[in-house]
Amino acid sequence: MTTPTDKTELARAAGANMYARDRASQELGIKLLECAPGYARMEMKVEQWMLQGHDVCHGGLMFALADTAMAFASNSHNEAHLALNANIDFLRPAQLGETLIAEARESNRSRRTGMYDVSIVNDAGKAVCHFRGRTFGVGGEVIR
Amino acid sequence: MTTPTDKTELARAAGANMYARDRASQELGIKLLECAPGYARMEMKVEQWMLQGHDVCHGGLMFALADTAMAFASNSHNEAHLALNANIDFLRPAQLGETLIAEARESNRSRRTGMYDVSIVNDAGKAVCHFRGRTFGVGGEVIR
Amino acid sequence: MTTPTDKTELARAAGANMYARDRASQELGIKLLECAPGYARMEMKVEQWMLQGHDVCHGGLMFALADTAMAFASNSHNEAHLALNANIDFLRPAQLGETLIAEARESNRSRRTGMYDVSIVNDAGKAVCHFRGRTFGVGGEVIR
Amino acid sequence: MTTPTDKTELARAAGANMYARDRASQELGIKLLECAPGYARMEMKVEQWMLQGHDVCHGGLMFALADTAMAFASNSHNEAHLALNANIDFLRPAQLGETLIAEARESNRSRRTGMYDVSIVNDAGKAVCHFRGRTFGVGGEVIR
Repeated sequence: MTTPTDKTELARAAGANMYARDRASQELGIKLLECAPGYARMEMKVEQWMLQGHDVCHGGLMFALADTAMAFASNSHNEAHLALNANIDFLRPAQLGETLIAEARESNRSRRTGMYDVSIVNDAGKAVCHFRGRTFGVGGEVIR
Repeated sequence: MTTPTDKTELARAAGANMYARDRASQELGIKLLECAPGYARMEMKVEQWMLQGHDVCHGGLMFALADTAMAFASNSHNEAHLALNANIDFLRPAQLGETLIAEARESNRSRRTGMYDVSIVNDAGKAVCHFRGRTFGVGGEVIR
Repeated sequence: MTTPTDKTELARAAGANMYARDRASQELGIKLLECAPGYARMEMKVEQWMLQGHDVCHGGLMFALADTAMAFASNSHNEAHLALNANIDFLRPAQLGETLIAEARESNRSRRTGMYDVSIVNDAGKAVCHFRGRTFGVGGEVIR
Repeated sequence: MTTPTDKTELARAAGANMYARDRASQELGIKLLECAPGYARMEMKVEQWMLQGHDVCHGGLMFALADTAMAFASNSHNEAHLALNANIDFLRPAQLGETLIAEARESNRSRRTGMYDVSIVNDAGKAVCHFRGRTFGVGGEVIR
């Protein structure tokens, strides 16, 4: 594959490339809606199997959605980055059948580290989670 | 069901009760190994579908394991608690076929809030993740 | 003192009241610039004594500024709230003589808990720290 | 100054060297009790000027103590590390006249990053704060 030189095209190609080999995100039903430089928007629908003992979406699966959005935003420059750590605040439970939208934005990027803020909202646009994570560059490109 | 009066028995019963209705944790292959007052030990095997684009376990699924262990430890007193927020550090990737063990310990418990430290280690006993989360009491009991 | 009924006035009065008895913030040279419902803006100048071994402002003092801003924002409704936990990212060192501006905004407020995002910028408007903290209500009013 | 080759001696020398030029920590009354490889123990007495509006120690000053302990532990190998981010949980207020003891332990150290757990206890040995922070290597040595 030819690596695009335009930054917007590069982000789109890196996103498509990563998504194609990210089996876990596919199995969780996470969809890539948009990947731009330092940005990603993804969605996940709350299915029956995702409910925990209180009949709301398992918090770990909401974290997985946010973490995935950070991964796509942090790799959008075609420089491979991995998650170092993250924190998440659970603001509101997510119900069966809701579609959760995660938007990841680059809040900081230095030579070797990145910081990302991810918000998850539900169908009604209400905040469900706030996530903040940090990544570090591991060398190498995303597009293969 | 009769609610046990002994604390150790109560924790075991609360754990079994929660696990039985926690479909998400079951679907993720998470098993409950032990539930004691302020404590839970759980495991999850890294399956093929759990791998992300770098061919290691998706970080969100490791978070899900840790978060589940916190849920069981924080509900072990038969008082319903929910996760408020959490942070996780990713120390080492987890490979296909490894069994991850999560141990959650109560580091603090006040009238309305709790704090839990969860460590995840792999088969070789190497640290994979450190997780710290906070919960708050929502009123009501766990055992129904 | 008469407690104002207008929300904006109430926030201003709660801020002034708290500031008057907050000796630590005064000693650190922190000034209250604005206090509105769910919001506070404060500043601190980096003095000689605030420098650590690398000749930049001690991270703990930048945290103190952010934490103070959260305290004023979270008490701005005249309901006493205390900090439960917080995380801070250090993005850029602060130099001697710089004036740091902290803005705290309420990102979430439920019956008993609050979440606040605080950004610290330097004279040049560059981001120095991002802080996110959670508070809980302890009962009682701020204005005495 | 001659740089020691023994690891324990090296840590002690790096600690003494850093402390001598860390004016902020000195001004806060923080004392260095011990510095060993990946470890530091420090103390701070709660003075009158450190109290905030509720007449307990300002949380930012407790953070400063914990952050300082992490700095000494992370630089104890004589490789200069800076704080990247940290989170702190406030478990119990600290009163006027109490001496707070902070112990920092290295929970992880890779080529470029470190993770530290710091606990603060009061005179009575009760937990006051839990702190977890991450550092990264900036190149260069501590001892000059």
